[in-house]
Amino acid sequence: MTTLAATIAQIREPDRHVAETVQRLLDAKTKPRRSLGRLEDLACQIAAIRGTTAPEPARKAIVVMGADHGVAAEGVSAFPQEVTRQMLLNFARGGAAINALARQAGARLIVVDMGVVTALPDEPDIRACRIAAGTQCFTRGPAMTRDQAIAALEAGIALAGELAGDGITLVGIGEMGIANTTAASALAAVLTGSPIDAVTGRGTGISDAVIAHKREVIRRAIETNRPDPGDPLDVLAKLGGFEIAGLAGVALGCAAAGVPVVVDGFISGAAALVAVRLAPAAAGALVCSHCSLELGHRIVLAALDRKPLFELELRLGEASGAALAMPLIDAALAILRDMATFDAAEVTDSGA
Amino acid sequence: MTTLAATIAQIREPDRHVAETVQRLLDAKTKPRRSLGRLEDLACQIAAIRGTTAPEPARKAIVVMGADHGVAAEGVSAFPQEVTRQMLLNFARGGAAINALARQAGARLIVVDMGVVTALPDEPDIRACRIAAGTQCFTRGPAMTRDQAIAALEAGIALAGELAGDGITLVGIGEMGIANTTAASALAAVLTGSPIDAVTGRGTGISDAVIAHKREVIRRAIETNRPDPGDPLDVLAKLGGFEIAGLAGVALGCAAAGVPVVVDGFISGAAALVAVRLAPAAAGALVCSHCSLELGHRIVLAALDRKPLFELELRLGEASGAALAMPLIDAALAILRDMATFDAAEVTDSGA
Repeated sequence: MTTLAATIAQIREPDRHVAETVQRLLDAKTKPRRSLGRLEDLACQIAAIRGTTAPEPARKAIVVMGADHGVAAEGVSAFPQEVTRQMLLNFARGGAAINALARQAGARLIVVDMGVVTALPDEPDIRACRIAAGTQCFTRGPAMTRDQAIAALEAGIALAGELAGDGITLVGIGEMGIANTTAASALAAVLTGSPIDAVTGRGTGISDAVIAHKREVIRRAIETNRPDPGDPLDVLAKLGGFEIAGLAGVALGCAAAGVPVVVDGFISGAAALVAVRLAPAAAGALVCSHCSLELGHRIVLAALDRKPLFELELRLGEASGAALAMPLIDAALAILRDMATFDAAEVTDSGA
Repeated sequence: MTTLAATIAQIREPDRHVAETVQRLLDAKTKPRRSLGRLEDLACQIAAIRGTTAPEPARKAIVVMGADHGVAAEGVSAFPQEVTRQMLLNFARGGAAINALARQAGARLIVVDMGVVTALPDEPDIRACRIAAGTQCFTRGPAMTRDQAIAALEAGIALAGELAGDGITLVGIGEMGIANTTAASALAAVLTGSPIDAVTGRGTGISDAVIAHKREVIRRAIETNRPDPGDPLDVLAKLGGFEIAGLAGVALGCAAAGVPVVVDGFISGAAALVAVRLAPAAAGALVCSHCSLELGHRIVLAALDRKPLFELELRLGEASGAALAMPLIDAALAILRDMATFDAAEVTDSGA
């Protein structure tokens, strides 16, 4: 069996009995029942994924994968392609938003080159998992081969396994790749069966005219490649990107290892959707951090059947929203771990 | 001039020029302009309140004030009155939700007895600012005298001044007081001119029958006391509570000292609304953390003209939502402080 197939076979739904037990433990704590709302749900979910009613404080990592996209040649982005590489260097040198946010969240940051056009210098803080020097332009044929898609997925699976082996118990996923909202929109359109216009938005900030062009580019890509919606690997290979495939692999690997995955925005959401189409039980391991301003994100979240924790009008990517959600998870676990029961604190429990 | 009048006279709007300069600084950072959405707004707002374009990391405190309410005798709560006192002891001993959440947020927790029915034992971790042994039942007359309302406001102002003097630069406010949603709903109805039914909800979890009774109690209270909506001190004295008045004072004192105030839920929101009606410029110093499940909260937020940062179906109080919002403020300030500019990081700026 391939690594991919073995990983998919290993993924289980989170343990419902653990979730139920944790809710009962929370109900005995000194607060009206369910008065911490979604924080209680988070505690139950994380415990169920970890498979323990007493999860330890999360040991956190954030994985940001970068890659280039052949479709950038079609002029679908507000930024030139070289910005992907420049931003990976910025991540390595500590100057980007995710550096500040990962530090605030207490998360280790792992930056991965999944295939930018020009290889990066030998930077100790960038991990090279280069599948190729960017994808092909998918208006003329598949973005990548099926083998490349599998290789990228398996690189993500390997990274997840390594992190779990290192004792990491919470992984955030995010990305960088000029033109990658175009790939994510194409994936979302095919995987959710939504109209292209409903899932294609402004990305980093393009004009109405460029959006119209971007939608036309996606229309051509789908027409040229005829991806099979029932075969997620086919859709991923024809319309995806190396960082999207890699992140789908991280999600699968984490789900297999019982490590919760904090999903960032639209593109990471598309990667998570690929993972869930490959292994439906992986959905239980996902925490969707936020709903971004990017047009198709709400549709992707609905397809994942996940409600985001907040909406802060973010549209950056880089796992920025995932990093912002991590303190909520820390807080949820702290409630479960640290609060006294009605009995222990001698507080009258009305049962409300 | 009284302390209250002097404090009100001292409150200024946040510095708009600082906010504009901070937005320009953020626009030069390596990210598409405005792509961090409300996190950027937060950075601008906090900087403008602090009056500096380079605010230091926040030094945080959370103030939880507790008091009893005469109206509890009307049977408007799911919990018996002794729970106020029991929960203050629970706060002092570290077993409540806010203990876990304040620790996670890195905030100093200050617990204040503004007037529970039975005085607390000499607990070093509870500060006694007792105005009286609970308010009077406001269905039969004013909850407190005008002098008591001023004393409670000034106790809050004094505490805010002390915290600012200690170098605290961010204050969360929250409360504990059995029956205090009844007081907050009565205040909200009169101060916003809303129907009682629109601002009166389930509190800690009462039934439909008890809600109907609670609404009738508020109707009688307003009829008996005839508070003057144009005189916020009159409304506060007749319908408020000592912890609500105290928190309004904390908000005024913080606004006067240029310290941002993170407002928790419905009751803290009603306290903030009292502060804003006394000193409209104080609104600029408020960050509303969340919108709770409590029915009237959205109306109070609209009256404050503040959009909450998240909605997590919370309905606990105790400053729990304020504590959860603090990492977002830390993150906003970290972005401003730590990110590189396009120039410094040699990243191509498309202007998008």
